[in-house]
Amino acid sequence: MFIRNAWYVAATASEVGAERPLGRTLLGEKVVLFRTPQGQVSALEDRCCHRLAPLSLGDIEEGGLRCRYHGMKFDASGKCVEIPGQSEIPAAMCVRNFPLVERHGFLWIWMGDASLADEDLIVDCHWNNAPGWPTASGYIHYKANYQLIADNLLDFSHLTFVHKTTLANAGFPNSRAEVEPFDRGIKLTRQILDCDPSPLHKMAGGFTGRVDFWNRQIWWLPSVFENWAGSAVAGGEGPPHERPGALHFRHFSLLTPETEKSTHYFWIHPCDFPHGDASLIDAVGQGIQTAFAEDRWIIEEQQQVMDQFPDVKPKGLVSDVALNRVRNMIQQLVNKEAVATRPVIPVVKQGVTS
Amino acid sequence: MFIRNAWYVAATASEVGAERPLGRTLLGEKVVLFRTPQGQVSALEDRCCHRLAPLSLGDIEEGGLRCRYHGMKFDASGKCVEIPGQSEIPAAMCVRNFPLVERHGFLWIWMGDASLADEDLIVDCHWNNAPGWPTASGYIHYKANYQLIADNLLDFSHLTFVHKTTLANAGFPNSRAEVEPFDRGIKLTRQILDCDPSPLHKMAGGFTGRVDFWNRQIWWLPSVFENWAGSAVAGGEGPPHERPGALHFRHFSLLTPETEKSTHYFWIHPCDFPHGDASLIDAVGQGIQTAFAEDRWIIEEQQQVMDQFPDVKPKGLVSDVALNRVRNMIQQLVNKEAVATRPVIPVVKQGVTS
Amino acid sequence: MFIRNAWYVAATASEVGAERPLGRTLLGEKVVLFRTPQGQVSALEDRCCHRLAPLSLGDIEEGGLRCRYHGMKFDASGKCVEIPGQSEIPAAMCVRNFPLVERHGFLWIWMGDASLADEDLIVDCHWNNAPGWPTASGYIHYKANYQLIADNLLDFSHLTFVHKTTLANAGFPNSRAEVEPFDRGIKLTRQILDCDPSPLHKMAGGFTGRVDFWNRQIWWLPSVFENWAGSAVAGGEGPPHERPGALHFRHFSLLTPETEKSTHYFWIHPCDFPHGDASLIDAVGQGIQTAFAEDRWIIEEQQQVMDQFPDVKPKGLVSDVALNRVRNMIQQLVNKEAVATRPVIPVVKQGVTS
Repeated sequence: MFIRNAWYVAATASEVGAERPLGRTLLGEKVVLFRTPQGQVSALEDRCCHRLAPLSLGDIEEGGLRCRYHGMKFDASGKCVEIPGQSEIPAAMCVRNFPLVERHGFLWIWMGDASLADEDLIVDCHWNNAPGWPTASGYIHYKANYQLIADNLLDFSHLTFVHKTTLANAGFPNSRAEVEPFDRGIKLTRQILDCDPSPLHKMAGGFTGRVDFWNRQIWWLPSVFENWAGSAVAGGEGPPHERPGALHFRHFSLLTPETEKSTHYFWIHPCDFPHGDASLIDAVGQGIQTAFAEDRWIIEEQQQVMDQFPDVKPKGLVSDVALNRVRNMIQQLVNKEAVATRPVIPVVKQGVTS
Repeated sequence: MFIRNAWYVAATASEVGAERPLGRTLLGEKVVLFRTPQGQVSALEDRCCHRLAPLSLGDIEEGGLRCRYHGMKFDASGKCVEIPGQSEIPAAMCVRNFPLVERHGFLWIWMGDASLADEDLIVDCHWNNAPGWPTASGYIHYKANYQLIADNLLDFSHLTFVHKTTLANAGFPNSRAEVEPFDRGIKLTRQILDCDPSPLHKMAGGFTGRVDFWNRQIWWLPSVFENWAGSAVAGGEGPPHERPGALHFRHFSLLTPETEKSTHYFWIHPCDFPHGDASLIDAVGQGIQTAFAEDRWIIEEQQQVMDQFPDVKPKGLVSDVALNRVRNMIQQLVNKEAVATRPVIPVVKQGVTS
Repeated sequence: MFIRNAWYVAATASEVGAERPLGRTLLGEKVVLFRTPQGQVSALEDRCCHRLAPLSLGDIEEGGLRCRYHGMKFDASGKCVEIPGQSEIPAAMCVRNFPLVERHGFLWIWMGDASLADEDLIVDCHWNNAPGWPTASGYIHYKANYQLIADNLLDFSHLTFVHKTTLANAGFPNSRAEVEPFDRGIKLTRQILDCDPSPLHKMAGGFTGRVDFWNRQIWWLPSVFENWAGSAVAGGEGPPHERPGALHFRHFSLLTPETEKSTHYFWIHPCDFPHGDASLIDAVGQGIQTAFAEDRWIIEEQQQVMDQFPDVKPKGLVSDVALNRVRNMIQQLVNKEAVATRPVIPVVKQGVTS
């Protein structure tokens, strides 16, 4: 079960142009994303209402998207505006439109009740390619449920064992993050003073000795992970993240369920390098890619074990506290949506029902 | 559900030789096709009655087909004629035989009640490689139910959008075919006067200006499509298909269900070129191949959408009239067969039960 | 359904080293096999009890196997001996251990009630690479249930038809093996006097004329096939297998179910060449490989037919007597295990319950 009343990243802005539509499965539904010649982005159900051919095979024209099969044309709102060889266009000849917002380099989609689609709820990723923030980014297709990836991101004790050459910091297993729930998820704060930097921090920060490390993370429900992490030379004054000369990463991992067993994983990694050397961004991006490939390897295997033995339950450790909290929150939201009567293709934008 | 009491193309005649048997799934059953050294073709159930090994792995010998596993030998009628190491051959040690007729370059199989297998019901394809009819032909394996392909062939309004470089004629969406049901299917007649020829007609007919176009199509239930189509120079006297110097295509698309989700698609395209240049046949064949690849691309995608959303129903357009008629006729035949008590492996050829 | 209270080959001894663990599915369960730096072999359930990541992705260390995900460490008995960042180790934090014995080049696993795992029941394969016994060996992954392979090995009438270039002996279909059941399976004895040797026997024995052929086979339940076969020059005195100058093969086929539809097939082929030319072993191994690839080809196809037509039953021939006996014995053992209350992860080794 997915949480439908939420903003998810459907695509990066650069993936969706005015040349060809993009078909993508999101939350188990087929969606076609396209941009009109005027630059307006649109997300429609990716099946023509006539004989169910995917609209993503069609062509973008002035004023809309034309089905490749029998030539029906739909405007950006999903309304049919032309049926070749037929003058009358019945009102029912339309396809579902999904709210879609272009912001900070992403297209954010709302797959639930459109009347609840409040743009203020979109997570702020303004660091993405902002001036002074060289940004690495990427996309991973995962053959695993998004919650297994969430589990991974919410328990950094795995860094020591999974990411030996990139993110490993010997201090993780023995340091506890402070966990603070709030109305939209949880916040995790962690500080490890006087430790050896991870290979990635060492390289990006140019550190030659011990560092004071921090991260301040937010899990935005259902599936955006914000991770402000960094290091400063060990032993300085004040909190490390406020010290001049510190290395700052403003990382976001943005998970969009594709199906119950697969996930679109978008990530951005804006950096503030203490020595201002923006050319390090390629090496940082390479390191993140390496680390995330290691995670994927394990998590996809974990998914396969779970598929094969659906009755075997995980046994908890102390370090599972944050991921268990988020799992509970997600379950509550799913339950809440299940009881709400969800109107299909609502027309009005105001008049929210709970 | 398939219509079983009907002739279907099992293979082209040239596919089935006396060197190796050919295994093929037809209407959800595994069938082995082979030719004896004397040239007799035979279709048997493709599993040895002993331990179910496919007979298509076996060897053709004088007098029959020998199973590759334990060496049982079956004659062309499916009767076991030898069991190595065992003198007695029980009568039950036989495999099912299917009526099979070689005609006009095809092997036609009857998978239902053999007592109903009337050879006069085989559709006449005598133009296939006949003198004066250079013929292009081909085979396509389709990952889609045969009825989706039937839908496609029964609504030519798609030509304008799917086949832009080959069969597109701007007139299709706005011309209506006359639809005339008869006892074995429907007939469609269409004429478009004074139009630009499609790229394929232009090339094959050597037309330099406008043409009068016609097609006279027959859908033979359950799944043979005959399409007599052509063009003549616009404005001549009498019906265009009777004028000298006209281009004639005597096309057949012959669909044989493999499974509920896949189809064997055989086609032939005999041509009468107005300028008698038989060398054009390669270019015509290439054009048909291109067009049919375009259809397959869309139809296989359409099948996938339907598989994923089995509850979503298509919404009808005016142009669906012919395909809906054929769908209804097919459903009636399926229902009729469902109520008939179907004898299995009937022995007598006469004495039909309804 | 599998027989669980039995020894199966899990791997060859050389497959399992101290560098990397080996993950393998056996009887439908995922198992990790590894060797400690001290050389002790161990078989554990291949999923960490924490979050179900496969332990076969982990690392072998002094004293056990460390999970690659969050670093839990298990000793060779499956007991957890370290949880990073957590001092208390709950007793439930363990993974199932399977009895595993290294003998004659194989690792034998017992997947049922550990209290019943009597090492004396392991089939004696001591010829494997023993002095004076040059040995060919191999592994085949089969996409078929192990009983279809057993059927094949228990009816040598197929040799004439499947293995024309290697094992074919024209006498097989017309000779009957003597079948003698005993408490652990059946014994088959066969002798064919004054026959042409099979291509493999001819080559390995250097025979120039007719031979007296024998085999003395044992089917050890559930799935080990011992085949002492050979040839001697035709017409000598006494039973052929006791004559000097005879060719001896001490073949074993060892089948381990992977799933209901796939099998691990290990085989060894120790040879006593009459002319002492050990270099023939490569050619013999090549011949066996060729023959077994032919079997696999047919059996995997047979499995597919059976999957597609689960209701079609094989029809028996006289030559099926041995395989039917073994099938009945296997069914009885399966039934017997189904009624027994099977304790999970039993701790005591003595005190057998039936």
